[in-house]
Amino acid sequence: MTARILVVDDIPVNVRLLEAKLSAEYFEVLTASDGLSALEVAHAQAPDLILLDVMMPGMDGFEVAERLRSDPKTWHIPIVMITALTDTADRVRGLEAGADDFLSKPVNDIALFARVRSLARLKVMMDELRVRNATTGEFDILGEAPQNAEEDAANGRILMVESENLLARSVTEILTEAGHSIRRATSNNEALELGREPGLDLIMVNLSLAGEDGLRLCSQFRSQDETRHVPILLILEENELAQLAKGLEIGITDYLIRPIDRNELLARTRTQIRRRRYHDQLHRMLDNSLSLAYTDALTGVYNRRYMDAHLDRKILEMVEAQKPVSVMMLDIDHFKQVNDTYGHASGDAVLKAIAQRVTGGIRDFDLLARYGGEEFVVIMPSTPAEDSMMVAERLCRMIEAEPFEVPGSETPVVITASIGAATATKPAETAEALLARADTALYQAKNGGRNQVCLAEEPEAAVPTAPPAVAAGGT
Amino acid sequence: MTARILVVDDIPVNVRLLEAKLSAEYFEVLTASDGLSALEVAHAQAPDLILLDVMMPGMDGFEVAERLRSDPKTWHIPIVMITALTDTADRVRGLEAGADDFLSKPVNDIALFARVRSLARLKVMMDELRVRNATTGEFDILGEAPQNAEEDAANGRILMVESENLLARSVTEILTEAGHSIRRATSNNEALELGREPGLDLIMVNLSLAGEDGLRLCSQFRSQDETRHVPILLILEENELAQLAKGLEIGITDYLIRPIDRNELLARTRTQIRRRRYHDQLHRMLDNSLSLAYTDALTGVYNRRYMDAHLDRKILEMVEAQKPVSVMMLDIDHFKQVNDTYGHASGDAVLKAIAQRVTGGIRDFDLLARYGGEEFVVIMPSTPAEDSMMVAERLCRMIEAEPFEVPGSETPVVITASIGAATATKPAETAEALLARADTALYQAKNGGRNQVCLAEEPEAAVPTAPPAVAAGGT
Repeated sequence: MTARILVVDDIPVNVRLLEAKLSAEYFEVLTASDGLSALEVAHAQAPDLILLDVMMPGMDGFEVAERLRSDPKTWHIPIVMITALTDTADRVRGLEAGADDFLSKPVNDIALFARVRSLARLKVMMDELRVRNATTGEFDILGEAPQNAEEDAANGRILMVESENLLARSVTEILTEAGHSIRRATSNNEALELGREPGLDLIMVNLSLAGEDGLRLCSQFRSQDETRHVPILLILEENELAQLAKGLEIGITDYLIRPIDRNELLARTRTQIRRRRYHDQLHRMLDNSLSLAYTDALTGVYNRRYMDAHLDRKILEMVEAQKPVSVMMLDIDHFKQVNDTYGHASGDAVLKAIAQRVTGGIRDFDLLARYGGEEFVVIMPSTPAEDSMMVAERLCRMIEAEPFEVPGSETPVVITASIGAATATKPAETAEALLARADTALYQAKNGGRNQVCLAEEPEAAVPTAPPAVAAGGT
Repeated sequence: MTARILVVDDIPVNVRLLEAKLSAEYFEVLTASDGLSALEVAHAQAPDLILLDVMMPGMDGFEVAERLRSDPKTWHIPIVMITALTDTADRVRGLEAGADDFLSKPVNDIALFARVRSLARLKVMMDELRVRNATTGEFDILGEAPQNAEEDAANGRILMVESENLLARSVTEILTEAGHSIRRATSNNEALELGREPGLDLIMVNLSLAGEDGLRLCSQFRSQDETRHVPILLILEENELAQLAKGLEIGITDYLIRPIDRNELLARTRTQIRRRRYHDQLHRMLDNSLSLAYTDALTGVYNRRYMDAHLDRKILEMVEAQKPVSVMMLDIDHFKQVNDTYGHASGDAVLKAIAQRVTGGIRDFDLLARYGGEEFVVIMPSTPAEDSMMVAERLCRMIEAEPFEVPGSETPVVITASIGAATATKPAETAEALLARADTALYQAKNGGRNQVCLAEEPEAAVPTAPPAVAAGGT
């Protein structure tokens, strides 16, 4: 882990001291000697972390932190305040101004490096997500400073792992009063179990769990999928600081030293919950963008792109497992009339309703895609020809049975569909050839009077597959 | 960093020893006492790393490694072989079987943990990419074992940072003979400069560069965007092993100890290049999927989804900067006739050609999206009404001027378009209102005889905006 760190202090010897320490550990160091130039450097150079002196003439560290937090270009950079102040009220003020942590002068090297590495690691992970989201355009990397920090951290769902009843009760009281909801586990096993529940915003772990190793539990949370990215706040005694460095290395995200100060507890809880939610939001947006690429915007079923990517692989997979795979091609009958009579919006409504009805009529492991226009394809794994006929016949009946509500028509409109089905029997058949046979069968179903299913003939061994029927645009 | 590690050794006391060491550092440990059960555990539990004893009765470590590498479920798990063998030929055999590294018995703790953490970190990063890609369906997490490892690592582009001429020459000779192409830098600055060039597969750094610090350079490579993910192979002397742990922590990916063995050099180079290309491929596929979500499949320009996401923000941005933003809505005249006369495929060809011609006629900072059917929208930042009229008029002329090649027609077909333009003037105007005004203007252009541009009237202060014209489906 390497990182670019901005050191801000008005006393040159302090700057040089930190610079030497960090540089010896192969961090890159930027420096600033007052608040204003700190803001400038942070804005222009985008460091991975800022070490910020609190007491400076002119603009002090609190104000610098606040300004960094309200600038869309710098709000996400972690800040560690460095201070001679040991008063809890000052620590809380710093946290509320936006600091992620405090280190006391003289700075202890182990604490410094552990904290710096842990925060820089989180920052790099976030950056990767931010950059990727920025490419989609839904997310503007410059315009996403959270407007209401209080709100972003409200109603947190917190898991507390704590065997001391007294401490558990007082922490629960403080957090509940602030609007968070707390569940408590008293053993490692119970904690891992409760950690599996979705929607957790924060885990608090007491380092000295009765008879168990708190750090071991943190490590297990980090290797369990459901809790890998949930922030962990470690609660420890002043004399357990040596274990803190190990904890940060394992992946805990913050800590509180007993006796616990009410306001510090609330401030650190807020910071962690806010980061967690932001991280979640980035993940969700990314997943959403990815799923959009493979979804038909109108009907919400898979698009042709997805089907094209899947069908060849599915055929190979099935052939390897010596199972048949079938496809059906479904085309809405006289769809053009719906469009011409009731307008495009009504045509769209029918497409949506058909997609929904087909989804309800196929099996969970079948895959429905809109192939284009009014044409859908269903891929049916492990399905022999007879079964595919059964499913296709059922779909035909389901579509015909209940007339469709169409905007622009006072009474529901009867709509039918024609289906061509084909089953891959030869290992060598490609997706293209299979679809072409289904398309030919669909053409026969149309010619046979529509609202019916035709099964494709098996491809002849020597003769190449018949060319696909003309695209069924006007049928 | 925490990870699940599989320890494989036929001697129980060796297993217990490694298990104790790893567990004390909060790694999770799985164990197996022979080759077959190692394969089973690896397959079922998907560990993050495998520590593999070489000499075991029955299936030895080489064979286990080979089998792990050829199983699509395990090929990506890093393997460190643990061996009493010190013969270089054995090391090379292990690397060729698929090991990522070797540790000699008795295992040195610092080397062990540095290597384990470094490989586990890479693995976690890869997993994140693999999982995300798997959701897109283009990539099957189970079916992607590289079929031809040799080929995946051929023709590597390597940057060698080396001040010793003799060493540089012999390494270059070996690698060039194997088909790689080498560029050499002799100083840190030159190295960072050359590192900026795209397409680099591997960087080799001599730890003892004349007068400079090799690790500092590695750290700089890691903070420079272009080289952040390029593997680094460190070359060092036997007596510099202490610095290796630091190097692995900074992010170097592999190392070679002098004197350099030709086959070991080639094997490690191959492994690194292959991993780099795999990582690159995952990144590319992800970016590709993301861009698909915002691209119109037919024409390749932005889709409506992207435009909807952008326009509101662009308006706000422009209003803040006190600059006007204009939009134009362009609709192809009598498009239905093209479809009806020459078929859908010809209609599609015209849509593509129009998108291409419009792209050529707008400015670099304008944004073209297909809005639906035969309708396109152009967003024009910093553009007052007069300028938008000029651009729109030019587009009209460009489309009309040169008839379009249409499949199905022997002579090119004259096609025209109508355009409605509107400029956001009030800070309060939404994207929706702005587009509605452009749509009304488009309707006027159609009514005025098509093949012309109409400029929208400014919205009246008190009266709400006129409702948008009916979708121009049949115009």
